[in-house]
Amino acid sequence: MRRADVSRPIGVFDSGLGGLTVFKALSRRLPGEDLVYFGDTAHVPYGSKSAAEVERCSLAAARFLMGKHIKALVVACNTSSALALPRLRRELPVPVMGVIEPGARAAALASRGGKVGVIGTEATVLSGAYPEALRRALPGAKIKAAACPLFVPLVEEGWWGGPVALETARRYLSPMKRFGADTLILGCTHYPLLKGVIGRVMGPGVRLVDSAVEASKEAARQLEAMGLRRVAASRRGRWSFYASDAPRRVLRLARRWLGTGELRVELANLP
Amino acid sequence: MRRADVSRPIGVFDSGLGGLTVFKALSRRLPGEDLVYFGDTAHVPYGSKSAAEVERCSLAAARFLMGKHIKALVVACNTSSALALPRLRRELPVPVMGVIEPGARAAALASRGGKVGVIGTEATVLSGAYPEALRRALPGAKIKAAACPLFVPLVEEGWWGGPVALETARRYLSPMKRFGADTLILGCTHYPLLKGVIGRVMGPGVRLVDSAVEASKEAARQLEAMGLRRVAASRRGRWSFYASDAPRRVLRLARRWLGTGELRVELANLP
Repeated sequence: MRRADVSRPIGVFDSGLGGLTVFKALSRRLPGEDLVYFGDTAHVPYGSKSAAEVERCSLAAARFLMGKHIKALVVACNTSSALALPRLRRELPVPVMGVIEPGARAAALASRGGKVGVIGTEATVLSGAYPEALRRALPGAKIKAAACPLFVPLVEEGWWGGPVALETARRYLSPMKRFGADTLILGCTHYPLLKGVIGRVMGPGVRLVDSAVEASKEAARQLEAMGLRRVAASRRGRWSFYASDAPRRVLRLARRWLGTGELRVELANLP
Repeated sequence: MRRADVSRPIGVFDSGLGGLTVFKALSRRLPGEDLVYFGDTAHVPYGSKSAAEVERCSLAAARFLMGKHIKALVVACNTSSALALPRLRRELPVPVMGVIEPGARAAALASRGGKVGVIGTEATVLSGAYPEALRRALPGAKIKAAACPLFVPLVEEGWWGGPVALETARRYLSPMKRFGADTLILGCTHYPLLKGVIGRVMGPGVRLVDSAVEASKEAARQLEAMGLRRVAASRRGRWSFYASDAPRRVLRLARRWLGTGELRVELANLP
């Protein structure tokens, strides 16, 4: 990749809106970079799809972003990171970064007793990707994974606190408490928005690892290492947003999550 | 359609698994009929998709079922009934029956004070299809519609009772109680599985209209009227199930909802 290419945007892709937490973390860490977000809202949620379907949808999304001339792709979706990363890395001519490796490494550093819990979608949990990455980062770790299918719709409904979120968290997390996790990976980019209730249920002794924040740190490090990081301290990056369906709904949630009214979302029809 | 065609199966289509409530009601009312179910699990949920995307997915599903030589199609999905029925009726050579008209007519008969509430997905509510059908069936009716996006994932998670379902119902239904609905249409085929908590929150004075049951009654009446009803009292109909993704998950839920272990689900890839 030529030197001039550092001015190209970074692509951020998620099955829906959860990736906006990664987008937000990236925009804070790399404020001078242009960012292009694509939410595959026509096919959300990936979490209950088969591996083949997740791979197919992920590739179509990545190709769409390649058309926006990105210099690197951040797969801001745990399900897609778990199931489609090898294929994306094989097929794309730019660096592809996921959310699972960074989350697993951060958990390995954070854990004091070696008991690590992971929560995510059904597909992420079934893939076994987190336990595999954790065992590499922290040999001998005791690991427990649990799917929390209702967390994504809860977040998209905007019910981040209150009795429904709290009761749902209690029910999903009670096996984690019995297991005695000292560290819990929020292995879905929607989950950081529920950090309050998750922390309340798990208690103050348990460290929560936010895969969105960890992914943004790792992306910044990798871009730096590859000479792809844009050095323009005074510049404020431009943001673009695309969604494969229902852009108005995406706009409403994006404004709320990112805390700014100054953005637009365009419709992008995918195969 | 020739007389011999009465032996063909009835197609039942839903975006996912909710239509199994219609399937169950149909199988009880028409035990001698062969039934073919198709759940478009690769594209579920339709409820947060745009109208154009719902129409596109519905047509692909209907064409798949036409390939199974059905004599009639029951659109067991409120969102699809609200948005795609005219197009399906135009394009298919067999009778197409929805769930909205029957539900609206049943509510008009049930309502004593003319105050009718409707709950459904975001797309169903935005379509305005229920209020429109209700005004035809009960001129002068006072109508209030509300979207309950979390009900579908709650049902699919199997949390049909308990504190989460109850708190969620309380929150969604409090505007309905303030409105003073005397009748409430469960305008999504998933919702009958939450009838217990919905009834508890609304109170005993409010009549609940189950769109799945009403749709099955209407389908039986129409097949009879068109001479398409199979008259074979001693015969037990054959059932087939197809899903466009994750057939094992469908199988697990279908066995639970239909209360029988003797069924199989085949994968059907759609465009």
